[in-house]
Parts: sequence; C-alpha cells; structure tokens
Amino acid sequence: MPPATVDSAFQKVTEGVQVKPNPYGPNPHDFMSNVSRFKLIESTLREGEQFANAFFDTEKKIEIAKALDEFGVDYIELTSPAASEQSRLDCEAICKLGLKAKILTHIRCHMDDARVAVATGVDGVDVVIGTSQFLREYSHGKDMNYIAKSAIEVIEFVKSHGIEIRFSSEDSFRSDLVDLLNIYRTVDKIGVNRVGIADTVGCANPRQVYDLVRTLKSIVSCEIECHFHNDTGCAIANAYTALEAGATFIDVSVLGIGERNGITSLGGLMARMIAADRDYVLSKYKLHKLRDLENLVANSVQINIPFNNPITGFCAFTHKAGIHAKAILANPSTYEILDPADFGLTRYIHFANRLTGWNAIKSRVDQLNLALTDAQCKEVTTKIKALGDIRPLNIDDVDSIIREYHADQNNEIAAAIQA
Amino acid sequence: MPPATVDSAFQKVTEGVQVKPNPYGPNPHDFMSNVSRFKLIESTLREGEQFANAFFDTEKKIEIAKALDEFGVDYIELTSPAASEQSRLDCEAICKLGLKAKILTHIRCHMDDARVAVATGVDGVDVVIGTSQFLREYSHGKDMNYIAKSAIEVIEFVKSHGIEIRFSSEDSFRSDLVDLLNIYRTVDKIGVNRVGIADTVGCANPRQVYDLVRTLKSIVSCEIECHFHNDTGCAIANAYTALEAGATFIDVSVLGIGERNGITSLGGLMARMIAADRDYVLSKYKLHKLRDLENLVANSVQINIPFNNPITGFCAFTHKAGIHAKAILANPSTYEILDPADFGLTRYIHFANRLTGWNAIKSRVDQLNLALTDAQCKEVTTKIKALGDIRPLNIDDVDSIIREYHADQNNEIAAAIQA
Repeated sequence: MPPATVDSAFQKVTEGVQVKPNPYGPNPHDFMSNVSRFKLIESTLREGEQFANAFFDTEKKIEIAKALDEFGVDYIELTSPAASEQSRLDCEAICKLGLKAKILTHIRCHMDDARVAVATGVDGVDVVIGTSQFLREYSHGKDMNYIAKSAIEVIEFVKSHGIEIRFSSEDSFRSDLVDLLNIYRTVDKIGVNRVGIADTVGCANPRQVYDLVRTLKSIVSCEIECHFHNDTGCAIANAYTALEAGATFIDVSVLGIGERNGITSLGGLMARMIAADRDYVLSKYKLHKLRDLENLVANSVQINIPFNNPITGFCAFTHKAGIHAKAILANPSTYEILDPADFGLTRYIHFANRLTGWNAIKSRVDQLNLALTDAQCKEVTTKIKALGDIRPLNIDDVDSIIREYHADQNNEIAAAIQA
Repeated sequence: MPPATVDSAFQKVTEGVQVKPNPYGPNPHDFMSNVSRFKLIESTLREGEQFANAFFDTEKKIEIAKALDEFGVDYIELTSPAASEQSRLDCEAICKLGLKAKILTHIRCHMDDARVAVATGVDGVDVVIGTSQFLREYSHGKDMNYIAKSAIEVIEFVKSHGIEIRFSSEDSFRSDLVDLLNIYRTVDKIGVNRVGIADTVGCANPRQVYDLVRTLKSIVSCEIECHFHNDTGCAIANAYTALEAGATFIDVSVLGIGERNGITSLGGLMARMIAADRDYVLSKYKLHKLRDLENLVANSVQINIPFNNPITGFCAFTHKAGIHAKAILANPSTYEILDPADFGLTRYIHFANRLTGWNAIKSRVDQLNLALTDAQCKEVTTKIKALGDIRPLNIDDVDSIIREYHADQNNEIAAAIQA
C-alpha cells in the first residue's frame, strides 16, 4: 500500500459543481492523521462472539472468516483459545485457511493464555489487561507493578515466537493517565507492534479520544489501535477522531455486534471513511460485499439489520420531502454524500406521500412515459397530496391518480377537437 | 431551571470507589460548554415525518406530542403547515393542546410559508434555507443576496407577531464559511432567538463541528441550534461536541427517524448526556418513559427497535464474557457507565454460553439456592462450557447441569456417610 497523502482526500466531490477540496476529507492541520491510511481489525469472531445472541459453530466461523477476508479486512481477531476447547480448535482451523488477512487472537495478560495462543498458529496476539481502578479492584485485583511485570513476561514470550504482539489497557478512559502512559512507554520500549486504547464502557467522547491518542502518540513509537464500545452512540465518531489524532488500527465488527450494544460497526466506519477518503477506501475494501456480509452475520445471530443502519438500512438512500426529492433529481450529491452505487445499492425517491413535491411527481410521470406539462404536473401533485393527507399512499395510488388525470386531459383535448 | 455549573458534572460516578471527577463529564477547559444546560428540539413530528415509513394521522400526532411533552422535551417541532392542508390543521390542533413544551413549525424561508405558519398559533417558527453551492444551484437557485433579503423579510414578519424565530442554513458544512458567517451576523443583528447549523447530508465529523460552532459562537449573540443527520453514524457524537463548543439546542427525533437513515436520536442523546451530567438529565427528562415513547413511535411507523439501540436495544445491559460477568457482579459500574435503573430497566448476566465464567455460574447457583463451594462452582462451570462448545445453551440447560451436579455431590456425601 502506498503511503497516503493529504492530497488524496482532496478529490472531486461530485460532477457538475466546481471542484473544491472535500470538506469531509482529512483535516490538513492534522499532521499525525491516519485517516488516509487506516487499517481494520475485524473482531466479529471475538468481540462479536460476546454478543448476547452469538453462537458460531466451526463451519459458521470459517464462513464468516472467509467473507471478511474477501471484503478485505486487514486482520481477523478470534476468541481466546483459552476460552474453551472448541475455541482453541476453531482458532487453529482458521489459521490453516491461508487467508490474506492476518489472524489474531485476543487473550488476558497471562502466561497460561499466551502459551495456548502461540501454539494455535496465529499471526499475532492481542493482550489486554484492565488498568482502571474499577477493573483493578473488581476484576483481577492486581496493582500497576504486577500489571507491568505480567505484561513484560507475556510480551517477551510472544515475541520469542516471532509473531505480532499488541498490548492494550482496558477501560482506558477511566484509568489514571500517568499509570497508562507509564505502562505504554514500558511496553513500547520492550517492543510491541501496537498499543491499544479501549473504551470498554462505551462512554468516551470524541475530543477526549483525540486528546488521549495525541498524548499517547507523543509517548510511543509503535502504532496505536483503538476499540470503542457504543453505549452512548459515539463508537464510529470516536474511531474517526482517533485516526485524526494518529491511531492507525480500528477494531470493528459486522453490524457492531459485541458485549452489550456492541462496538464500532464495519459498515458504519466504511460510511464514515468513504466520506473522508473515497479513493483509499475503494482501493482496499470490496464495498459491494458489505450487504451480503451483514446479512450473513445477522442471520447467524438472528437479528434484523437496524432500519437506520448506515448504508444498508432500508431507507439509507430513500428521499422523501419534496425539496429533497427535487434536488436529488437535479443532482444526487445535493442530499447524498455517499453514492449508493459504491455499495452496489440504488437510491429511491419516495414520491407517494403528502410531503411529495411536483418535481418528484414529474419524474414519476416521465417514468410512466406520459406527457404532462409542468403546470399539469403541479395540478396532479395537488390531487396526490390531498389523498396523502387522508391516508398513507402507495405507488399504485399515485400511478392511478396520474393515469386518470392524464386520461382526463386527453379526453378534454379530444372533446375540444370534436367541439 | 437554575444555571448549571461545571461542578454539577463532577459527581460521584458510583459507590464503593474513591470519588473522582467524572471522566465523561464536561471538559473544564470548555468555557463555552452547554453540556450541562442543553435543550431539546424534538422533531419526530417534522423530521420524523420525512422518514420513509411515516404517516401520522391527527390522532397519532396528538398522542406522540403528548408523550413527548410528558417526557419533558423543551420544544416540539411540527411539519410546515404549508406542506398540506391537513398538516396545517394538525399544527393548529397541537398548538391548542396547552402542552408545557413550546410548539414550533419548520418552514422554507419564504413569506408565503411564514404567513401560514404564524396563523397556526405556534410559539415559534424555524426558518431554513440552503446556503451550500449544491442547494443554491440545484434546489432554490438563489444567490446569497437574495437569501439575506428573504431572511430579513421573513424574520421581521415573524417577530412582528411576537413569536420566536430561528434562522438556519441548510447543508452548513458544505457552505462557504464567509457566506455563512455573513448571513448569521446579519440575522443576529436583526435579532433572532436562535441560529441553526445543519449537517443536512450527515457527514460532518466532531472536530469540524466543534470548529464551526466555536467560530459561529464568536460572531453571534443569540443561541445556537444544531441538526445532525446520521448517514455516517456521527449524529450523537456531533451533537455532544456541538454542546461542548457552545451550542444549546439539539434537534432530535424518537429513534432518530427522519430523511434517509435519520438524525440524532432522542434516546441516544440521553445516553450520551446522562454519562456527562446525570443530575441535569434526571432533573429535566422522565427517562422511565423512554421505552414506551420509543415503542409508540416504532409501532406507528412499523419498525423494530434496533438490536443495538442505546439504552433500549434488547442487549444494551446484557453482559456475557466471563470476565465481564465477574466484575459486573462485584460492581456494575465496572462495565456499565449507564445505570439501567435510571431508565426503568434491568441488567442481565448472560451465563448460558461457552464464554461464561465461574463467577457468573456461582451467581446462578446462589439464585437457585443451592450450596456449592467455589471449587465446585469451577468444576460445574467446566461442564457447562463443554456443552456450550457443542451447541447454543439456554438457561434450562445450565440449571439442569447445576442441579445434577449438586445432586451428585449430595449423593457422594450420603454414600460417604453410609460407608
């Protein structure tokens, strides 16, 4: 992958309008920004397995891993092989698939887990330990010295097997900053591939994320990975802001499935990133496969695609209000920053309702191949809106009103000719 | 409402842990922050009506307006009375309900619409006009001089009727900054209650929002309202960041319904804000009514609550992985920044799966009122995980394994006594 430049984001937003820098592109003042060279650590088979409904058998895990690989994710993270015997066997099986994506597994910062992990054949190990006062008191009960000692032992051991190692704190935003920076500097000096920041409780806000990542960036020389839960709905925005501040790796899962209401979703992040750097995203990821990938996972865990899901929600490219429909018909970029065609999808002008406008109806008249003047379109729109005030409309309602109106016009003309 | 202070956010996060400033509270460096005194402009009956599935008849509109008022929203925004005759009648009907919330309607920047609006009895009018090059070219086709002239005429007219007036640009983040600041300064000088920023295409990112709101804050003396679409998943984060920068009013809708995949959701923003300032949110809004309110709207527009919805998604307070369950049992704040009880909800420890841990199983053993030692709980957990590796478990599976194991232990004791 060539090193990305700020210029690559300053693409042409759309046709027909004077070319200006993309206002949603990387901020040229962010010298540390990795918005145009981010990578994905796909965790549907780890964080996603912690989703309430998830039970993936071996066959399903392999199917999902292959689909993720075809989509183009950079890394695939798997449940700890220490979690259960089948988890260990599945981890070995996925390592043997020969995927392009690197395979990671996610373990506690403990030698027992590390030994099992390196034996599976993974390309890397993601180590995590709770550093917040909450987790130190109510989870593992260890102090920072113990944490540092365990971390060093596990990191040295994993490195001695020649595979990648990431060290992450857990609940990073409620951890003491000095403790955090101390442990990150320590592990960076030993040498790790990545350090991780995790908003385990899902409440960090974007500027807080920016500050912590920027600060960490000034302390370590390795790359930074971020993991954001979505309890307060900021997981996608936090991921973007972390990239602006200098993080490179974002943890995602398909539809965001994970503990509680989950993490940054793969599709949501794609929407966010393609708005910032379309060329980079299109060069790396097979966006046309997103819908099938989401359907695969949604079916596996028995959920529906949320109505408001970015990109693939049923109405993501549906335009309804009259002034929206009018402008979309003139130039889709007026009310669309994402092009549905990039995802193998299409837009829809919702004209069968009382908020409709005559431009939308005129477009339908053209589709029906009927000849009406603009004035006539306005008149028939008034009739359609009047019925739309009384009850919900469907397309047949609109079409029949248009056809009837059209027939009446022709009859009037015929009558006039006869008269 | 008393003026909020930064101190009010520095509350006790939870019991049992040394009291420290809330790390998710307002940033004390944000002197302009309105995080602790934000207000809601609830737009389910305007933006929400632009949702693909929405058709609200008069009765349903009144039911929703009353429910919103009981929840405690500050303003209720209604579809333009110029949209259709029934829209106008509904607007009048809702104005006559005598709700505590102020009633607004949302119109194009045009005298025809303004005349209809002021006649309905609303408390205020929200005026909007497209200022981006896209909208000027493909929507209304007017230049900035025309926009300013229309704005002044409409604002003077609405003010002359003694009701509130907001002036908003549309697609603000793709508008020329100088144009924007010019028009905002102009309308602020004439005197408006609020100026509005709208991310109409849903692609602004948080730091961009912060910069624009801060800049605008230095130009105008009136209050700032923000409207964020969610196409790239940042609508909640952008709203929060706008408040940090000095905006006061956030447009929301129930479940975020609106054009395309919608806007900042009421529930999502409540999750975000309660993490920042619990006292303020609890003092103003009836959070226990959130679930019913969401169900009312979801049923009206025939959608399901998304599985991953903040707060009310079915798994928002479900904890699954062993280490999560362990810590949650010791202290819920370990993995929960939101307290489900604040919303009239409960948490759930998902113990029937292969990722379970012995602490979760011990908790279940206690619930079943069976006596097992820690060592025995660990042993029975191994049995449960082994079955969980083979197939998805339900609670009955786990309970029967526990009961069987418990019976075996008692039989062994009985046998030992007999021997």
